[in-house]
Amino acid sequence: MSTDRLIYLPLGGAGEIGMNAYVYGYGPQGRERLILVDLGVTFSDMETSPGVDLIFPDMSWLIENKDRLEAIFITHGHEDHIGAVGHFWEKLGAPIYARSFTANLARHKMRDQGQPEDAVKTVSPWPEVTDCGPFSVGVLPISHSIPESGALVIDSPAGRVIHTGDFKLDETPVVGEAFDPALWASVAKSGVKALVCDSTNVFSRHDGRSEATVGPEIEKLVAAAPQMVAATTFASNVARVKTLAEAGQRAGRSICLMGRAMRRMIEAAVESGVLDSFPTVVSPEDAQNIPRENLMLLVTGSQGERRAATAQLARGKHNGMTLKEGDLFLFSSKTIPGNEKGVFRIVNQLSEMGVDVVDDSSGLYHVSGHANRPDLERMQDIVNPEMVIPMHGEHRHLREHAKLSEAKGRASVVAVNGTMLDLTGKTPKVTEYVETGRTYLDGSVKYGALDGIVRDRIRMALNGHAIVNVILDEDDEPLGEPWVEIMGLSEQGNSFAPLVDVLEEDLSQFLGRAGEKTLADDDKLSEGVRRVLRNSAMSEIGKKPEVTVIVSRMS
Amino acid sequence: MSTDRLIYLPLGGAGEIGMNAYVYGYGPQGRERLILVDLGVTFSDMETSPGVDLIFPDMSWLIENKDRLEAIFITHGHEDHIGAVGHFWEKLGAPIYARSFTANLARHKMRDQGQPEDAVKTVSPWPEVTDCGPFSVGVLPISHSIPESGALVIDSPAGRVIHTGDFKLDETPVVGEAFDPALWASVAKSGVKALVCDSTNVFSRHDGRSEATVGPEIEKLVAAAPQMVAATTFASNVARVKTLAEAGQRAGRSICLMGRAMRRMIEAAVESGVLDSFPTVVSPEDAQNIPRENLMLLVTGSQGERRAATAQLARGKHNGMTLKEGDLFLFSSKTIPGNEKGVFRIVNQLSEMGVDVVDDSSGLYHVSGHANRPDLERMQDIVNPEMVIPMHGEHRHLREHAKLSEAKGRASVVAVNGTMLDLTGKTPKVTEYVETGRTYLDGSVKYGALDGIVRDRIRMALNGHAIVNVILDEDDEPLGEPWVEIMGLSEQGNSFAPLVDVLEEDLSQFLGRAGEKTLADDDKLSEGVRRVLRNSAMSEIGKKPEVTVIVSRMS
Repeated sequence: MSTDRLIYLPLGGAGEIGMNAYVYGYGPQGRERLILVDLGVTFSDMETSPGVDLIFPDMSWLIENKDRLEAIFITHGHEDHIGAVGHFWEKLGAPIYARSFTANLARHKMRDQGQPEDAVKTVSPWPEVTDCGPFSVGVLPISHSIPESGALVIDSPAGRVIHTGDFKLDETPVVGEAFDPALWASVAKSGVKALVCDSTNVFSRHDGRSEATVGPEIEKLVAAAPQMVAATTFASNVARVKTLAEAGQRAGRSICLMGRAMRRMIEAAVESGVLDSFPTVVSPEDAQNIPRENLMLLVTGSQGERRAATAQLARGKHNGMTLKEGDLFLFSSKTIPGNEKGVFRIVNQLSEMGVDVVDDSSGLYHVSGHANRPDLERMQDIVNPEMVIPMHGEHRHLREHAKLSEAKGRASVVAVNGTMLDLTGKTPKVTEYVETGRTYLDGSVKYGALDGIVRDRIRMALNGHAIVNVILDEDDEPLGEPWVEIMGLSEQGNSFAPLVDVLEEDLSQFLGRAGEKTLADDDKLSEGVRRVLRNSAMSEIGKKPEVTVIVSRMS
Repeated sequence: MSTDRLIYLPLGGAGEIGMNAYVYGYGPQGRERLILVDLGVTFSDMETSPGVDLIFPDMSWLIENKDRLEAIFITHGHEDHIGAVGHFWEKLGAPIYARSFTANLARHKMRDQGQPEDAVKTVSPWPEVTDCGPFSVGVLPISHSIPESGALVIDSPAGRVIHTGDFKLDETPVVGEAFDPALWASVAKSGVKALVCDSTNVFSRHDGRSEATVGPEIEKLVAAAPQMVAATTFASNVARVKTLAEAGQRAGRSICLMGRAMRRMIEAAVESGVLDSFPTVVSPEDAQNIPRENLMLLVTGSQGERRAATAQLARGKHNGMTLKEGDLFLFSSKTIPGNEKGVFRIVNQLSEMGVDVVDDSSGLYHVSGHANRPDLERMQDIVNPEMVIPMHGEHRHLREHAKLSEAKGRASVVAVNGTMLDLTGKTPKVTEYVETGRTYLDGSVKYGALDGIVRDRIRMALNGHAIVNVILDEDDEPLGEPWVEIMGLSEQGNSFAPLVDVLEEDLSQFLGRAGEKTLADDDKLSEGVRRVLRNSAMSEIGKKPEVTVIVSRMS
């Protein structure tokens, strides 16, 4: 009897939406040969991670086990699936497999980080498979809001796993392969042990809508616009960008792409062959010589990103172009939760300019890239797996998806990041917990989310920062008065004297009272100074700042 | 011919949703007698105002003209209309008028800030009016998501203005007076110069729904729940709290109110007579002896506020109560844009406990308190004003509302905070701009949003903070090595040496090279130290921190 087992271990993406990284393994316990599916990022925010440039899954476990890693597969080119490839490849070292368009993007990611582009191998879709250790992995085309999204057919001696990646069931996706239920049924026919499945839209109870449905509506809107039209969507939604551009073209408008990501994505789509036709585009320079009513701008920044083209246009100018009263601005996009304030800030700026803003509130100009609940059910019906492992979702999504699966008579389990499942038997079993978390990229340095650095930043932001300098002579006697600097604090408090004067006076009195033992001991002295300063600030300005004490001894 | 004029000046609430404060004046230019309508707050957020306790409108203009202020009217008890009353009354000094329930809340606000409660006068609704200088002001009942919301009928020699306050057209509001179209028509009959009107829901194109529609749905949900039920809504939505409590009562459950605001609101509603019946409540202590399936908790914190009862229950415990697998948690509320992440954090925590969460995504368990677009049109049809001045909205709302009004053949204008309108003629005219803005309450100190204090906090949060201490002797020679402390920065950079060591070494070299003129001049020295430190940090950790330089001279 074999003791080999098939394991599944999410390191990112399960219990959150973002930074996907899923490990599969097969072999004897603790010596399983491994593959990694996706290596994505999450974006920072001011509330939890101020000043952080990117957030990665904590890959320590996999780095420690890199000698067991056979391959990395990337399902599609969204940042939350591909964004960390260049940042971790050096420490993981395995070949990276993806289909043509995704591989094109992955090579950009590698080059950006000074990594070898030839580590990225282009694979063809199913029935081609890649053998890696005990696994044989095929890429099964599936529709999503980016071209060439691929589900993975992961075969091992323990059976077949289908890892959906991000998907919707779109039979008219505009760009890229349509969902092919017959192909999927044929792949599933011989039996599927586990369906590891996208959970994003499990709470959306209505039927999913095809990408093809937005085209006619966008065309009507653009055709009726009297002045310039600008539209934004995720640059990676090549189908949507094409739909927008064609709507402009049919309305007799020249198309101008604005924002680096928009140009890069269209280039990658053309280079890799997923986009065979796209209206001719004009450069921003040439666009300035075209009458505004004959122009359509396709711009980055649908999520309100401050440095993207949309935000720049809303603030006044981007690449020499400006918006004016009577222009139309279309958000052909959904605002991701958390980005509302930034997006509304832009809408209000556009409103101040007199620009007419149309967003997705009508439901006409955007469709989701993820399978809604009825399509998740249909997917289970087609694949007919023994078990369903929900992934790509917050806890609430995973739980709902597991409940849905169990209601359909299939074994399921909520497995968040770090939960290793044994899939060998008839039902998924939690076999161990691996320490995971988040790694922050901050400038050029990586550190753990819990290292305290960001905690200190948040504290300074909430409480302000006071710095005290105390100088002592050879006999541990204060040399002059203590010196206080403040940052992020009111310069004047309740006594109407400068805050630093009040703090220095109170500290001076403290030093005058302090005994020899306190003055001779850096820790005791710092502790006393900190306490006095915080209390003094509390009575002056009603809050206790963060305090840094510098004790200098002249010796 | 009189040169008296009627003016309107929003100091807060126009161009934003929050901190409402609207001034009306009548008299000769520059000597108009004034009344203030509402005096509210906005809440801070980490992105724009970290560490700030409350945000007020900048009341400087009105404080400078306090001798012209006749009265303050409060339309209703929501924080964005009443929250700043206690904080500014001392500087404004005018009597505060409100109806009974609102006055009850206003007195709490005054007491909380050590202000005299008797400055708050209770008024009866229309046809009673209050004379204040050239104005006569009546309070016309209108429905909203809090009891006793009142529109103001503001009469002056230049004609009648109706200031709606926040409203919806609800003829079955559960608690408080129903919207009475006949009464409104009678008030409008003699002619209305201007309708100054809530714009919040101008983009909601469907008909508004009555508060009474949610009761039956909530009842069904609560009746079907097998274990404990907890529900949250805005505490001030007394009608909803009553509906929830009665649903619990009918299902044989004891009701327990959790969270200070919930108890205070129900008390105020009972004291002021707006709530004549409410199910008996049990204390949290007694609730612990009641079987869970016979219990319903009504809790504060529908917006995910970290310190409220909902967040505490989600983290584990509040007042001795805990939630368990199989319990039901109902968000009978809408998430205000910007609060999504906080609310979803809680939903995920509840999901981890196995609690079933129901929110408003079905549209069954919550209705808005603001008039949707068709009701805004109906309001105009009933009041038939010469002009419509949109208020209570971001720029996009005001602009859309002005367009709607103009399409209906009425004069309108977008007037954001600080825009003084002359309403004397047939159309509103912008007559001057007054400097306005935001005032932050931070601990016990108030300061302007643009004073740089919060900017410095945000910079420390984004960039970290480095402090350098340089000590020089009587001859301007460095005494010892420069000393660096860091906060919110990685302790180790690209060279794998401690960051402070690298920074100190580079600074030491700089001081060694520095000429006499630099060493003798605090500004030059600080500037040089700052530059060297930022460049050194850039190469070590890829970012430039905020820098505080302390130069100490032994003399």
